[in-house]
Amino acid sequence: MLLRLDGDGALGQRIYGALRRAILAGELRPASRLPATRTLARELGVSRNTVLGAYDQLLAEGYASGRRGSGTYVATALPDPLLRPAPRPAQRVGVRVPRLSAYGRRVARASAIPPLGGAEPSLRWDFRYGIPAVADVAQGAWRRVLARRARIASLPTMTYGPPEGSPALREALADYLRRARGLACDPGQIVIVNGSQQAIDLAARVLLDAGDRVAIEEPQYQGARRIFLAAGARLDLVRVDGEGFDVARVPARGVRLAYVTPSHQFPTGVVMSLGRRLALLEWAWRAGAIVLEDDYDSEFRYEGRPIEALAALDGAARVVYAGTLSKVLFPALRIGYVVLPQPLVAAFRAAKWLTDRHTPTLEQEALAAFIAEGHFERHLRRSRTRHAERRAAVLEALRVHLGDGVDVVGANAGVHVLAWLRHVAAAGLPRLVARAAEAGVGVYPVAPYYSRPPARAGLLLGYASLTDRQIHEGIRRLAEVVRARLTG
Amino acid sequence: MLLRLDGDGALGQRIYGALRRAILAGELRPASRLPATRTLARELGVSRNTVLGAYDQLLAEGYASGRRGSGTYVATALPDPLLRPAPRPAQRVGVRVPRLSAYGRRVARASAIPPLGGAEPSLRWDFRYGIPAVADVAQGAWRRVLARRARIASLPTMTYGPPEGSPALREALADYLRRARGLACDPGQIVIVNGSQQAIDLAARVLLDAGDRVAIEEPQYQGARRIFLAAGARLDLVRVDGEGFDVARVPARGVRLAYVTPSHQFPTGVVMSLGRRLALLEWAWRAGAIVLEDDYDSEFRYEGRPIEALAALDGAARVVYAGTLSKVLFPALRIGYVVLPQPLVAAFRAAKWLTDRHTPTLEQEALAAFIAEGHFERHLRRSRTRHAERRAAVLEALRVHLGDGVDVVGANAGVHVLAWLRHVAAAGLPRLVARAAEAGVGVYPVAPYYSRPPARAGLLLGYASLTDRQIHEGIRRLAEVVRARLTG
Repeated sequence: MLLRLDGDGALGQRIYGALRRAILAGELRPASRLPATRTLARELGVSRNTVLGAYDQLLAEGYASGRRGSGTYVATALPDPLLRPAPRPAQRVGVRVPRLSAYGRRVARASAIPPLGGAEPSLRWDFRYGIPAVADVAQGAWRRVLARRARIASLPTMTYGPPEGSPALREALADYLRRARGLACDPGQIVIVNGSQQAIDLAARVLLDAGDRVAIEEPQYQGARRIFLAAGARLDLVRVDGEGFDVARVPARGVRLAYVTPSHQFPTGVVMSLGRRLALLEWAWRAGAIVLEDDYDSEFRYEGRPIEALAALDGAARVVYAGTLSKVLFPALRIGYVVLPQPLVAAFRAAKWLTDRHTPTLEQEALAAFIAEGHFERHLRRSRTRHAERRAAVLEALRVHLGDGVDVVGANAGVHVLAWLRHVAAAGLPRLVARAAEAGVGVYPVAPYYSRPPARAGLLLGYASLTDRQIHEGIRRLAEVVRARLTG
Repeated sequence: MLLRLDGDGALGQRIYGALRRAILAGELRPASRLPATRTLARELGVSRNTVLGAYDQLLAEGYASGRRGSGTYVATALPDPLLRPAPRPAQRVGVRVPRLSAYGRRVARASAIPPLGGAEPSLRWDFRYGIPAVADVAQGAWRRVLARRARIASLPTMTYGPPEGSPALREALADYLRRARGLACDPGQIVIVNGSQQAIDLAARVLLDAGDRVAIEEPQYQGARRIFLAAGARLDLVRVDGEGFDVARVPARGVRLAYVTPSHQFPTGVVMSLGRRLALLEWAWRAGAIVLEDDYDSEFRYEGRPIEALAALDGAARVVYAGTLSKVLFPALRIGYVVLPQPLVAAFRAAKWLTDRHTPTLEQEALAAFIAEGHFERHLRRSRTRHAERRAAVLEALRVHLGDGVDVVGANAGVHVLAWLRHVAAAGLPRLVARAAEAGVGVYPVAPYYSRPPARAGLLLGYASLTDRQIHEGIRRLAEVVRARLTG
């Protein structure tokens, strides 16, 4: 008998492994007798105890049966088909693909996931939307508060927490929302989630069946659209005009949920007017529908006071409000929250429990301290000032370098603008973007956010992570590329 | 006109708020003229500029129209129904409950969530399963590694990460699984999730449609059962005997997924025999079904070497393997992982993206460093020794204090045992548990983990978080309560 003693473990382990492989591969057949331990020990030149140890393990694990002394036999109970040689990787190509659920089939399509920022080469002047303001956070108190909390090891911070989230954080958020957003809510209406993505996903799970109709903005946040498509919903695309989501175009009946970004429509940057907000609430009330308010950018507004959140205007338990820390702190934190009408709390809480029990405790406790100690609002004030400077730099640079060639919208809030290029055809934009990348400038077409791409050439310009200097130089280079395209 | 200047903000804000409330409540009717600013300023005893500021805000937000000088009017565009007084909390009871999805209705039932540990009063000698070994972790390297990572602020640690998880962590886990579990997998087959709860939930979403049949252990982990029920699955309860999940009782056809805990069946503690493992894989291969292997307790085994994971024995892409850090580090970390057959990677990755984009980066990076620097395996070795001592203390204490009155099973692995009380009737157990709690001892009936509660009285005794002394004293007190019940 030839045993290949592969691997680099202890000798007994390697003998055990080799015998086991031989059994599973069918080289040692069921009910056949294993070599006597003395014989095998002599053949392999090892002590008999080493072989005995390997046989004991085979016996303990059911690969072999019998007793020492009267002989050890390969187990007979091993089901036959599995004793065939395991397929090698090359053979596995032919493996049957497991059947997926309807949801699984919908998400498995390549188009289910928007392209990921992280994987692409980084550009020196990158106007990618969603890149956090690393320097603003790094210089602030967040890291100190987090590191302080990271050193705490205690039962409450380490055992399972409540599905709705840390009581301290929910209280701090309720206070903050009352002060900053005029949104009077009880901490009991808040559920902490892993970013607004989970807020939207939980809402879709708890509120939508396959075939239900959902009204979404056109253009829209892809992450939301894809959740609704994965849920099997039929989408009613509702045009966004200068006042935001055009409520008059939403069917009066039959729509279950409307998803909106009223503070700073994504990606156009339009702020939904008060009239539209009230009309949307009226629609929801009449239609028996839910409004999912994604307030992702409410913290940064540069002109006038923020208009009240839909949730603050809602008197009829129709609004699910989703907030996120991804824009005011950073996305990798994965913390957001929903403020729920009381009748929906039980279902969201249970769905959160079943989905992942709760959001990690460390981030929750650190954020609660960060808010309660006043760091959060100081950070917001500082961020507002810095973002306002960056915004002014973007507007100034676009005016100086592109002048009449550009039509900028969505600049009164958030951390991005939408720039329509007047003299560039929509069809020519991908090439212009490629040229800009060659010049080290990252700009991103708005077309992917439309279900029906626009006839004009629009670029999304995020500025949260850029310095004044980078903004000016980036836009100057962009303008050069635009001019070269026009003249070349 | 009477304005109630509620709240404690700046005076202008309070005037604005009072006017806004009056408009929304219909006290100031659409198109009616607001008081002249001079008049109102005099009436309220404030400067005219303060009133002008409030009016500007009402104008900016669309509550009012007109120009200064020629008079300010309540906007006419406000939809009528919303101008009725907002319902007061007392009236809200009558608010229509929003319609939930089929999933939402299933999870909203009170029974969807198992009782939560955290909410109950803590007991001095608490044998609750799932309480982490705080002292083991606190004294170890985890806190140091975490605090070190918490101080790092950089773009890669702050921006969106890949949905499948940090490459460094997936590589560290693939190495670890190869060394420790004999599970040869590529990092590309791993998706990082928020604990095994999310692993099971993603598997249910991606693989199950409502009405599909799922085979689960009886008794079983409630969190899994509830996920499958929420998904609308029909459950085939499969008895667990001395060899684990009784594969022969699973229907040969029509079951889509089998959920098992082979390393240490939850809650009975039985280790699934090799024969059963191979038979289960054969069944899955023949039935075209998936085996979801929840390997939650594989790290702690006290007798013999761990039997190979189903995923390591699988040659036919039938096993989804779920691991968790909740037992080896602590649950509030919310980190787990799945090892997937290649054909399922795309669907899981997309579902993870849509669900919450990715698991928080800090914990992932800290864990990757913790494993790569060797701390993890040192921690495991130390934990194994400590848990083995605790286990020995439990067995010894049960022998000394309860002797023949108890039948202990499931002690060869994990961090809990199942103790069947021989002389206590199942019906009498709740009272015994209450008496034990009065004596400061937390013990937990196994009955809730059964769909068909057993005729015998069984207690789940978790010991991960207890000292030798606590174990001995707790069991001594438990024995006193048992004896008092028997004689009283």
